[in-house]
Amino acid sequence: MGEFDLIARHFKRPAVALNPAVDLGIGDDCALLRPSPGIQLAVSTDMLVAGRHFFEDVDPHALGHKALAVNLSDLAASGARPLAFTLAMSLPEANDAWLTAFSKGLFELADAHGCSLMGGDTTRGPLNICITVFGEVPTGLALLRSGAQAGDDIYVSGTLGDARLALEVMLSVRGHGHGHGQAGQMQAPHVPPAVLAQARARLERPTPRVGLGLALRGIANAALDVSDGLAGDLPHILQASGVGASVNVDAALDLIAAKRHHAWPAAGFDVVFSAQDRQRWVLSGGDDYELLFTASPSQQAAVQAAAQSAGVPVTRIGRIEAQAGLRWVDQQGQPCDIEARSFDHFSAPGP
Amino acid sequence: MGEFDLIARHFKRPAVALNPAVDLGIGDDCALLRPSPGIQLAVSTDMLVAGRHFFEDVDPHALGHKALAVNLSDLAASGARPLAFTLAMSLPEANDAWLTAFSKGLFELADAHGCSLMGGDTTRGPLNICITVFGEVPTGLALLRSGAQAGDDIYVSGTLGDARLALEVMLSVRGHGHGHGQAGQMQAPHVPPAVLAQARARLERPTPRVGLGLALRGIANAALDVSDGLAGDLPHILQASGVGASVNVDAALDLIAAKRHHAWPAAGFDVVFSAQDRQRWVLSGGDDYELLFTASPSQQAAVQAAAQSAGVPVTRIGRIEAQAGLRWVDQQGQPCDIEARSFDHFSAPGP
Repeated sequence: MGEFDLIARHFKRPAVALNPAVDLGIGDDCALLRPSPGIQLAVSTDMLVAGRHFFEDVDPHALGHKALAVNLSDLAASGARPLAFTLAMSLPEANDAWLTAFSKGLFELADAHGCSLMGGDTTRGPLNICITVFGEVPTGLALLRSGAQAGDDIYVSGTLGDARLALEVMLSVRGHGHGHGQAGQMQAPHVPPAVLAQARARLERPTPRVGLGLALRGIANAALDVSDGLAGDLPHILQASGVGASVNVDAALDLIAAKRHHAWPAAGFDVVFSAQDRQRWVLSGGDDYELLFTASPSQQAAVQAAAQSAGVPVTRIGRIEAQAGLRWVDQQGQPCDIEARSFDHFSAPGP
Repeated sequence: MGEFDLIARHFKRPAVALNPAVDLGIGDDCALLRPSPGIQLAVSTDMLVAGRHFFEDVDPHALGHKALAVNLSDLAASGARPLAFTLAMSLPEANDAWLTAFSKGLFELADAHGCSLMGGDTTRGPLNICITVFGEVPTGLALLRSGAQAGDDIYVSGTLGDARLALEVMLSVRGHGHGHGQAGQMQAPHVPPAVLAQARARLERPTPRVGLGLALRGIANAALDVSDGLAGDLPHILQASGVGASVNVDAALDLIAAKRHHAWPAAGFDVVFSAQDRQRWVLSGGDDYELLFTASPSQQAAVQAAAQSAGVPVTRIGRIEAQAGLRWVDQQGQPCDIEARSFDHFSAPGP
């Protein structure tokens, strides 16, 4: 038995802990999953690469959490209930302490969602984590990107931009400027530790909105999870649905939690950060893992009830329109001179 | 749209080409698969890392083939019919010609098995390919490692050892000795080009035995695919089934195709290679992707009929016994002094 077979043992658990849909877990050529009658299986895969999606020296417990969280977020966006997942990873070395923490972070989140590790592969190589996740949704009830209707309200769950704020502050502390004008001036900004800790938690331990996704079945017309920023992801719904939208940019910009944190001195956030920083983080930040969805105005009460049952606030930020394109407006509904496309070059810079 | 979104377009195909079980393919947060009633879903995942599982400069068409083939081989070993797969990959650069060839190799094999790409993820990073594959098998009919019975015949399909022969010859040409005694002497051995070409095809374009796996449902008692060598993989069946085995080592050693190739001059193979080379390749070679399975002697005719219908020969190499452990015997049934465990350190050296 090789070193990496031993590593795989970190991920073996008693069969009694498996989701009942898993008939056979790790240890054979294939795992066996028994789908319930009348369901569709929702499947998503994400690959996380060291130095690209996370710092190589990230807390392995957080990394185990995040690797699964980003996949569960895809199930949430489809309104699917998590069942199981496979984990393939390449590791530069067999580090027992690292694996112990990683698997702990992974299984804590998995267990919270009844989502069983049912297969995997470990090998030596540059640090890379690939998870494929399986969920179930009653046939025809999956939330798709293509269902938005003109007149729908546009909602986003939770908060936006804090993960990217944390990433940029951490990069500046490490001496890696962002490379764009504003960020270049942002060498180790003075952010209260409690604010940074909250923002880092959003970056490193995102909460997949699984409960909200399930509660929105039959209520939302379209949904996705915001992983590349609002300005980059909303167009996916618009294009898939053949519609356009107006978005209240001020309502969106208010969604960054860091600005409201009580640990700031008076107006502290706006002294340390520029308006452009905030725009970039909220509109093009990435790593938010919030649900962006649309629903008919007639579903307004149902949306709020779903949000309440899931324990996460949702905010209406705009409206779907028949006219193609994404239009940013202010509180008064007047057009803003924000060029959504100009955010493209901020997307996905990685650590 | 970033560079790697453009790369992903190499993998987008018309929905009409999808397996009918795939209700929704690439382009949403999740793909949707509709399982047939009464089936179990067989799932396997494999990660291939450059420099470990393949040479960085390997023909990308062959790599596309192999990345899927090793996964289909797991479905074959479970007796599952391929349905669909997800592909996640990290690439050091966006090389259009490379992607074109890779996707061609991938889709040629996928189409031959009606197995649809239904989801994926592409990112920048060290070359890494992770495929998760889905197949279906009627509930309860999956071939498992745990079903072997004392008295069962042990069979292996096709040929063994040629892939590892090719790997070692290619390593010696590149100036990387194997590091073990015999191999150290094997600097660029004189192998007829036709022999090496055939062996390389086994290494670089393995044929997953999907048809054989399907034909063995209800006939074989246990099965797996040989990916780490006969001596390393047979014990997985023995341990899972709580049995032992006697294996005719001469029958096994005859399974290397290179020795029989007509391009050799008289006794050429045995002039160039040692008996130890052959033993290492056949018993501990790896990358064979043949099916190793057991069946009751009463199923002998049914096994041969299954092999004929699948178009691949199968060879009986031994017998399952109640006594634990793996015993190597010669043609006369006398014990051989081959220490199966001594092969452990040959396993999985990678390119």
